[in-house]
Formats: sequence, structure tokens, C-alpha cells
Amino acid sequence: MKRKDVEVYEDILKSNVAAAAEVRRRFREQGVLVVNLLSSPGAGKTTLLERLIDRLPPPARLAVIEGDIETERDAERIRAKGVPAWQIQTGGACHLEAKMIGRLLGELPSDLDFLFIENVGNLVCPAAFDLGESLRVVLLSVPEGDDKPKKYPKAFLTAQALVLSKADLVGLLPFDPERARGEALEINPSLAVFRVSALTGEGLDDLVAYLHLARAGLAAEDGRHA
Amino acid sequence: MKRKDVEVYEDILKSNVAAAAEVRRRFREQGVLVVNLLSSPGAGKTTLLERLIDRLPPPARLAVIEGDIETERDAERIRAKGVPAWQIQTGGACHLEAKMIGRLLGELPSDLDFLFIENVGNLVCPAAFDLGESLRVVLLSVPEGDDKPKKYPKAFLTAQALVLSKADLVGLLPFDPERARGEALEINPSLAVFRVSALTGEGLDDLVAYLHLARAGLAAEDGRHA
Repeated sequence: MKRKDVEVYEDILKSNVAAAAEVRRRFREQGVLVVNLLSSPGAGKTTLLERLIDRLPPPARLAVIEGDIETERDAERIRAKGVPAWQIQTGGACHLEAKMIGRLLGELPSDLDFLFIENVGNLVCPAAFDLGESLRVVLLSVPEGDDKPKKYPKAFLTAQALVLSKADLVGLLPFDPERARGEALEINPSLAVFRVSALTGEGLDDLVAYLHLARAGLAAEDGRHA
Repeated sequence: MKRKDVEVYEDILKSNVAAAAEVRRRFREQGVLVVNLLSSPGAGKTTLLERLIDRLPPPARLAVIEGDIETERDAERIRAKGVPAWQIQTGGACHLEAKMIGRLLGELPSDLDFLFIENVGNLVCPAAFDLGESLRVVLLSVPEGDDKPKKYPKAFLTAQALVLSKADLVGLLPFDPERARGEALEINPSLAVFRVSALTGEGLDDLVAYLHLARAGLAAEDGRHA
């Protein structure tokens, strides 16, 4: 990039940092665990959300923000599960930004436990944009291959948790979960790694337990700061 | 985006158009069919290239440019097949640009028949950047799902050919090839669609025949312009 381009990109990142901090402050105040889901297209983010919704039944209060280049399809799938969903169509942009989340603050229910944000399907650009989440979860699906963490390191570096999705395909496709796990942990040793199949249910209970823990941690942290 | 950001983005696109035109002119002069391969991470671009190399044996003269955020892995896989390969590491950027190809012009053999460029794994950003190719091929792999064309329309709109890859998984995974094909054709009615399995070999001969035809068309076109 030329100097002018770099400056503008840095401006965008800087204004995003401020917007993200404000979004995070607002949601933490309300005790909402905001989860930002990142992955390639078709790694199974929406299907994972559908399964998490089944396993986080009321009284857990959920909402979902869906990011896509075009279409309302994903939000419609979530609404069909009885959970309120907002669709952000970026109209070409390859990632969500914090101010897009900020604009929805007034519309979202104020008494949520969990807000899931499904980012645009893209393993590259969304990694650079903090949305004000408290938890970033990156999905790597078995069909994508076990060599992806080092090719797309930033998503793995900035996440707290890695979901190896479509785990029912392990053994059918050339994917070594230990290689994928090891490579991701080399990039980010503190990643929590889950092997999950939305089809068979493998790993979902562990992931749900982790989400509850993360939410409890949020409250404890707020307690410390109070 | 703010006005300044939009201007800079338009500057980048404009300077890319000029660089792409120059790259295209140079390669057409030499009778090289330049193919730009686009897809999500893990849709099987490198594996498809390995299989195409097997089916385009000498006397066909091939070279490959690999685009990745990080690592030389893909170029090494191509070199292991005896084909010269150049790796461009974008160091964070989510797509290749024409000037990156232009910089390699002096290093590439001058007597090529086919130059394959494997773009960064990303179904969004690369669609906006002409690399000076004569043929753009987008891959959509069966595990990604048949609903992706309308969610990521630009890649399908700007390609000449669509490869439905990992076709051996049709029937095992919830993917209707006719839905994917139909949706892609609604976006771009002139797309040539190939159902390909690098594993079983399905569709590879048709794709190779198409590449030969496209190269012959290039020569015919140059003849008309001469």
C-alpha cells in the first residue's frame, strides 16, 4: 500500500478501536457476553448458532447479529428458531466494523445474556476489526484442511477459542485434527480448542459450558472493577 | 466508508485497472492464457492445480503464481510436481493486485502456454481486482454449501467459469449442485459450470478441454486484432 492508503487504513482501524471500546463498555455494563464468530464461507457458523440456540434454551436470553455481503438468509434461519436476529448487509465490504454494531445498540433488547455476531464469511479481513466482543471464536471446518492456521494466522492469533467444525468428517477427509490444533496453538498458545459436529452433537456441550463460564467470568471481572 | 476512504479505494482500483491492462497486453502478446483462480480458503485450488498439471503434461508449458497471506506451502506443492512456481506473500492483504503480477513479468519464462494464478483464499476481496487474467475461474466446494453464490455474488458475476469442487462429496453432504448452479447462473448467465472432483477425476477432462479452447480463443482473438 502507498503511504496515503496506509494512513487511511490506520484511520479506519483507529476509529474502529474507539467504537469497539464503547460497544464493549455498553454490553459489559448490561452483563451481555458478546461473541464474534469468524470463519471462511461455509465453515458452519450459522448451523453452529442454530445448535447453540437449542442448547441455550430460555431462561437464557439470546440475540444474533448476522453479517453478510448480500441476502437476509442467515437472519431468517435464526428467526425461524425463535431468536431475534438483525441482518447487516455490508454491500461488498468484507468484514463488519464496530460502528455497525453500535448503530444497533438502541434496537437490541437490553436484558440479554448472550449476543452472537456472525461475521462476514472471510478468514482474513474480519480478524483486523474488533467489534467490541468479549469473546472471539474462530471456526475451521474439516473440509478446509489442517494447514490453514499458519496461512491465515491473524484470525487464530486474535481469537480466544477455536472450533474445529464438521468434526463428523474427520476420517472421511484428509484432515488431522492434531495438526490443526498444534498449528493453531503455536500461533496462540492460550486458544481453547473444541472439536464440534453440529450434525452428531459432538463437542457442543463443552462449548456451551465454555460460553457459560465466559459469561460468568465477565460478571466476576465487572465485580473486580466495581 | 467515509469520503476520503472511498477516494483512496477508488484510486487503488483505478491504478489496478491500468496495471492489469498492461499485464494482459504482455501475456496476450506471448500467447499465454492467464487463469485467475478464486475461492474461499480450502475449496481445493491447489489440489485442482496439481490435477490440472497431471493432465496438461509437456509439451504444454505451465507456470504458477501462488498468493497467500503467509507461508510458501502452496508454491512448494506445485514445485514438487516439476512446475515452476512463484509465491507472493501478501503479509496481511486479502487479495492479489495486478502490480504484484507485473513485478514478476521479468522472472517468468517467456514461452508459456498457461499461467495459473492462485489468489488468496477469500471469496470477497479478490473479486474486485483484475490481475490481467484472460480467464477467471471461481471454485465453490461442496462442503461450503449451495447457498453461497447469492451471498458472495461478485466472484460469480466476474468469473467466466465456475468449478463445483469436491464433487465426490455430493450425496454425503447437504449440497444440491443444481441449486448452486442455478443460483450462480442467475447472477451470471454466461458462466461455464464444471462439476469436478480432484479425488475421482470427475469433470477434469472437460475442464482441461475448456482451458485448451480458451487458449485457442485467445490466439484467434489476437489474429482478429492483428
